[in-house]
Amino acid sequence: MQLARNNDIADYLIEPDPLRADLTRSVNGTDQNGTVQTISVVEERPLTIYLNAQEIVTAMTIGDYPEYLALGFLRNQGMLLEDDDITGVDYDEDLDVVVVRTARETSYEDKLKKKTRTSGCAVGTVFGDMMEGLEDVQLPATKVRTSWLYDLAAKINRTPSLYLEAGAIHGTVLCRENAPLVYMEDVGRHNAVDKIAGWMLRHDRVAEDKILYTTGRLTSEMVIKTAMMGIPVLASRSGFTAWGVEIAREVGLTLIGRMRGQRFICLAGEDRLIRDVDPASVKVEAGKHGRKGGRA
Amino acid sequence: MQLARNNDIADYLIEPDPLRADLTRSVNGTDQNGTVQTISVVEERPLTIYLNAQEIVTAMTIGDYPEYLALGFLRNQGMLLEDDDITGVDYDEDLDVVVVRTARETSYEDKLKKKTRTSGCAVGTVFGDMMEGLEDVQLPATKVRTSWLYDLAAKINRTPSLYLEAGAIHGTVLCRENAPLVYMEDVGRHNAVDKIAGWMLRHDRVAEDKILYTTGRLTSEMVIKTAMMGIPVLASRSGFTAWGVEIAREVGLTLIGRMRGQRFICLAGEDRLIRDVDPASVKVEAGKHGRKGGRA
Repeated sequence: MQLARNNDIADYLIEPDPLRADLTRSVNGTDQNGTVQTISVVEERPLTIYLNAQEIVTAMTIGDYPEYLALGFLRNQGMLLEDDDITGVDYDEDLDVVVVRTARETSYEDKLKKKTRTSGCAVGTVFGDMMEGLEDVQLPATKVRTSWLYDLAAKINRTPSLYLEAGAIHGTVLCRENAPLVYMEDVGRHNAVDKIAGWMLRHDRVAEDKILYTTGRLTSEMVIKTAMMGIPVLASRSGFTAWGVEIAREVGLTLIGRMRGQRFICLAGEDRLIRDVDPASVKVEAGKHGRKGGRA
Repeated sequence: MQLARNNDIADYLIEPDPLRADLTRSVNGTDQNGTVQTISVVEERPLTIYLNAQEIVTAMTIGDYPEYLALGFLRNQGMLLEDDDITGVDYDEDLDVVVVRTARETSYEDKLKKKTRTSGCAVGTVFGDMMEGLEDVQLPATKVRTSWLYDLAAKINRTPSLYLEAGAIHGTVLCRENAPLVYMEDVGRHNAVDKIAGWMLRHDRVAEDKILYTTGRLTSEMVIKTAMMGIPVLASRSGFTAWGVEIAREVGLTLIGRMRGQRFICLAGEDRLIRDVDPASVKVEAGKHGRKGGRA
C-alpha cells in the first residue's frame, strides 16, 4: 500500500462532502434493461459575482463555497490586486449573489469587453488578455519528489467525493509535499481552481511549496491560472495541449500529466523532479478507485 | 460484432483527420522511469470571430474548421437568425480571424455585456440569457432504437481520431439512425458542437431525424445547445447534472448518458426509446477502444 509508509500525512483542511444534501439530487431513469434506476446527479446553479457595484459574471457552480469562488475568480482574473484591502464578502443565498467589496474603487468596464473563449469550455471567456501579467511570472524552482506524486494520487483517488458519488464533476486539490490539503470539486473545473485560489487568498497561504493536482486537462488556461497563483507544480491524470506545454516551459512550471498508476509523463521542469521511488514498487490502482482520465 | 449486421450504414461525411500535421505537435518529455518519450499533443490556437463589423469572441480551438465554428457559434448564440442571408464567411489564416457577413445589419453590444460562466468551463461565458428562446422549444418526439445507440457507440469508438492519437480532446458526432455523419473534435467540447451547428447551417440539414453523440458531460448548457439546434436526442458516455436533466424533460429532449458497453441510463424521453436489441447480446468494448468517461 503506497500510503502505509506515509501515515504522518496531514489531514485535509477541506475535503469533499459527498453526503451534503444540497449538492446532489436523486433522479429516476431507466437502464438498458428498462429497469427503473434512481441515480444521484450533481446540482448546477447560477452564482452572480459582483465586485463592489459592478456585476462581473454569473458562474454555474455546485454552490458549496460561494465566497471562495468569488474571491478566487476575481483574483485569478486580476480584478483583485495583491495589496487590495478586502472589506467584505457578502453572500446572499436567496439571490444567488456574492458581493466582494474592496477599499479601492474598482471599474473593469473595458476589461469585461474583451473576451477569449477558452478550451475545455462551453462558451468560455477569459476577460481581458489571457496572457496579461504572465510575462513577469517566473516560478520558484521547487523540487518535487516522485514519491509525493504517487502518494497524492493514491490518497486523492481514495477520498470520498462527489465524483465517486455522482460523477460528472471535476476535482482540484491543493497539496504540500505528499499531503493533500484542500480538495475542491465543481461542475466547472475552473471553479474548483478558483475556490482554491479564494481559500489561499482568505487564509494568506504561500504558494511556492504547493502542488496543484487536477482531474482535468492541462490546457493553456489551466497552466496560466496555476502560474498566476504562484504554484510551481501542476499534475494531472489527463493529457496536455501544445500551448499549455509551451507556457509551462516559459514560466518555469513543472508539468506532469497522464498520471495513472505507476505511469506519468513530465513535459516541463524535469530538472526539479527527484526520482526517489522505483515506479515498479508503486501499487497499481484498484478498479474501484481508478478514476477515469477526464478530457475536460 | 455489433456492426456486422449493419454494413449498409453510410460513410462519414466528415471524420477526424488525426494525421493532419497542423492539429498536433510532437513534444519531448520523460516518463516515470526517466526515459525520454516523444508524445503527440493537440494544438490550441486563438480564433477571433466577427459578425459584420463587430468583434464577438476569441475562441481557443484546434483550428480545423474555422468557418463552421464561426457560423455555428453565432447561430447557437442566437446572433444569426434562421432567415438571415449570409453574404460571406471569410477566414484569414494569418490573422486567425473569421468574419461572418449578413445582409441584415447586426449589433449585439447589449447582449455581449451579459455574461454567464458555464459549467465544464474555464471562465466560460454564455452571452445574453442562457435560457433565452428556450421557452418556445418543444422537440419532435422522434423514436430512437437502442440498436442504433449501440451501433453508433461501437462505430464512433473505433473511428481513428485525434482523441486516440493525442488525447485531451472532445468529440461530438452528428448521427442519423445508426450512422455517424459528421464527427468533430476540439479542445473545447462546445467548439465541437458549434462546428456541427455550422455544418448543419451551411448545408441546410434538418435536425428532427438526428442524434447528437458527445464525449462530454450532459450539463445544462450542452442540453440547451442541442435543443436550440432542434436535435431531439442527446447521448453521451459521461454523466448528468441535475439542471441538464430538468431542461431536457421540459423541452422534450431524449437524454441518454453513462453509455458504456451494454449499459446506459435514460433520464428523459424514455417513451421514445424502442428497445429492439437485447443488451446482453451487445459486445463489450475492447480495452483499446474503450474511451474513458470524460468529465468535461
